Amino acid sequence: MTRAFNFSAGPAAIPTEVLERAQKELLNWNNYGCSVMELGHRTPDFQGILDNTEASLRKLLKIPANYKVLFMHGSASHQFSMVPMNFLAPNETANYLEMDHWSKMCIKEAKRFNDIHVEQGVRTNSDGLLELVPEDEWKLDEKGKYLHFTSNETIVGIQFQDDPNRFAGKLVSDMCSDILSRPIDIEKYALIYAGAQKNIGPSGMTVVIVREDLFDSFQTERVPALFQYPYVSDKGSMPNTPPSFGIYFAGLVFEWLLERGGVEEMHRQNLEKANLLYDFVDQSDFYHSPVAKGSRSFMNVAIQMKDRTKEERFLAEAREQHLIALKGHKTFGGLRASIYNAMTLDGVKKLIHFMERFERG
Amino acid sequence: MTRAFNFSAGPAAIPTEVLERAQKELLNWNNYGCSVMELGHRTPDFQGILDNTEASLRKLLKIPANYKVLFMHGSASHQFSMVPMNFLAPNETANYLEMDHWSKMCIKEAKRFNDIHVEQGVRTNSDGLLELVPEDEWKLDEKGKYLHFTSNETIVGIQFQDDPNRFAGKLVSDMCSDILSRPIDIEKYALIYAGAQKNIGPSGMTVVIVREDLFDSFQTERVPALFQYPYVSDKGSMPNTPPSFGIYFAGLVFEWLLERGGVEEMHRQNLEKANLLYDFVDQSDFYHSPVAKGSRSFMNVAIQMKDRTKEERFLAEAREQHLIALKGHKTFGGLRASIYNAMTLDGVKKLIHFMERFERG
Repeated sequence: MTRAFNFSAGPAAIPTEVLERAQKELLNWNNYGCSVMELGHRTPDFQGILDNTEASLRKLLKIPANYKVLFMHGSASHQFSMVPMNFLAPNETANYLEMDHWSKMCIKEAKRFNDIHVEQGVRTNSDGLLELVPEDEWKLDEKGKYLHFTSNETIVGIQFQDDPNRFAGKLVSDMCSDILSRPIDIEKYALIYAGAQKNIGPSGMTVVIVREDLFDSFQTERVPALFQYPYVSDKGSMPNTPPSFGIYFAGLVFEWLLERGGVEEMHRQNLEKANLLYDFVDQSDFYHSPVAKGSRSFMNVAIQMKDRTKEERFLAEAREQHLIALKGHKTFGGLRASIYNAMTLDGVKKLIHFMERFERG
Repeated sequence: MTRAFNFSAGPAAIPTEVLERAQKELLNWNNYGCSVMELGHRTPDFQGILDNTEASLRKLLKIPANYKVLFMHGSASHQFSMVPMNFLAPNETANYLEMDHWSKMCIKEAKRFNDIHVEQGVRTNSDGLLELVPEDEWKLDEKGKYLHFTSNETIVGIQFQDDPNRFAGKLVSDMCSDILSRPIDIEKYALIYAGAQKNIGPSGMTVVIVREDLFDSFQTERVPALFQYPYVSDKGSMPNTPPSFGIYFAGLVFEWLLERGGVEEMHRQNLEKANLLYDFVDQSDFYHSPVAKGSRSFMNVAIQMKDRTKEERFLAEAREQHLIALKGHKTFGGLRASIYNAMTLDGVKKLIHFMERFERG
């Protein structure tokens, strides 16, 4: 069996060791005589899986006790609606940083419910490169109940290198594509959400971390029960049948991370992988990065070729070398190497080696 | 490896052949070099999986072309909110048949949004057995935009043996626990929904079948984008990253069903399994069924022991015989054998054999 080096932006690469373990126990979990997929969610066995998954995530991200951890159905886009529906009464507002595709989708959804303040989070600098607007330049509405930002924009490859200081304690972040890639100062956040399909596991499950004291102020009027954070929390993430296989799988990934030194070590490895790739691109006249230093994502490395007519050949030849899913998003084009936690340093080195050979022609 | 006979109500047994196939290709789908879980949902490969899954379901249930098939995140409980939010303007109403646990949850959620008419769908007959109220006795509000009913109540084991005639064309049904167990006359329905975790695959995905001409009349005011059926349909079930592994898995189950004669053959087998079990229970003085003939579920067989103190020992000894998950729902007690499509006739015979021996003591 040949496993490729998978640079997909999401659903993304999963550690081979985790897939092997899931494969081994797929028909008979823990000698229970059935698959974990076939296990009733109200059994003590499944409750154990859920509890262990939560405990591992709390350990990895050092989540304080006054924050609830929820494992919810769906993807980040569900949270795009849930956040304003829970946080904002009809006359209340919030700040949204606009960056690229996903933050625009999120803003569009928030506007369905409230009159929100939108601030540009990304701009083009004098060299024509994309960069984050420094936080001291953000013009925010101080009456806003929160500041929403997308910590890593998957499509163009722009990432906050650290947690912002503005609106500390009232930050809400879509961390889909960089959760668990670096340590986070949880206490700066009111709520964090992340779809599973990049750094956690199969799609269809979303992790939410939310400060519990906010629950009393959350709205319920015409909010579907399953969209109410306090309700889902009160039911221990199981108001209904949860995405049980996704929760089990997340637990395996969290365990894999803990065994490998946690997010601190992942952060070190992620920077090492990304720097290697950006350094190679920077010294090349053939490839270039559309993003300024200091704003570059260490999860999604957007790469453009000076001669864009060669893209198709690049992708085809890369695939022959088992380097797959390197095509950029259709709205942005070019190439993109998503190098989440599961992408090994070897994979990045193999990609660079291929890029070197392709450049030589 | 010992696979048990799994009588779980849900997440429920999955055909062993399907799990074996998923296991085989878990690390390398279709020689693509990665798991189907790691496959980008915008790739032609995943689109192929989605298209095949839909085509198989259309074939199995003979879904007419004017009905859309959606594969959505979440479980039936999400649909409890979505149905009233889409169908009903603030001043409009609908009929709901109240049966047991799930229909009550559904009614509670609909009342959050609209003033609905609730009609009793279940009653206790003169023998103290539960039975469906015949449809000619239902007092319905003719102004109701639809009639919602739960086709099979998992907890007490009551099932509609056929599609109702009242409100034909305007029926909305929660078919979580009996979809694909018998042929359905789709044209009687405005909308059908079913969570995957009983007869389809792992939890976290819900199938929706909805008549397309209704879309123009659906509400959008303060309805989250992902809760709008026309929006999800317009995006081909992928307004966001879909539950891709669940969709793939459903496709495998649908293929398994087609290879075995489809829902017509499943219906025959399901009746055979259920009749065998009910006949055994009926002739026994030790066990009894709390449900009247004609209303009995052929998916979830509730069984009560005359001496309820023996339940715990029954469950423990059954487990030793690899007959698992036979405990009734906590709100109803007793025993329950869920015998969905994946439960074999052999499994039911083994259960009966065990029950006989247990009765003899």
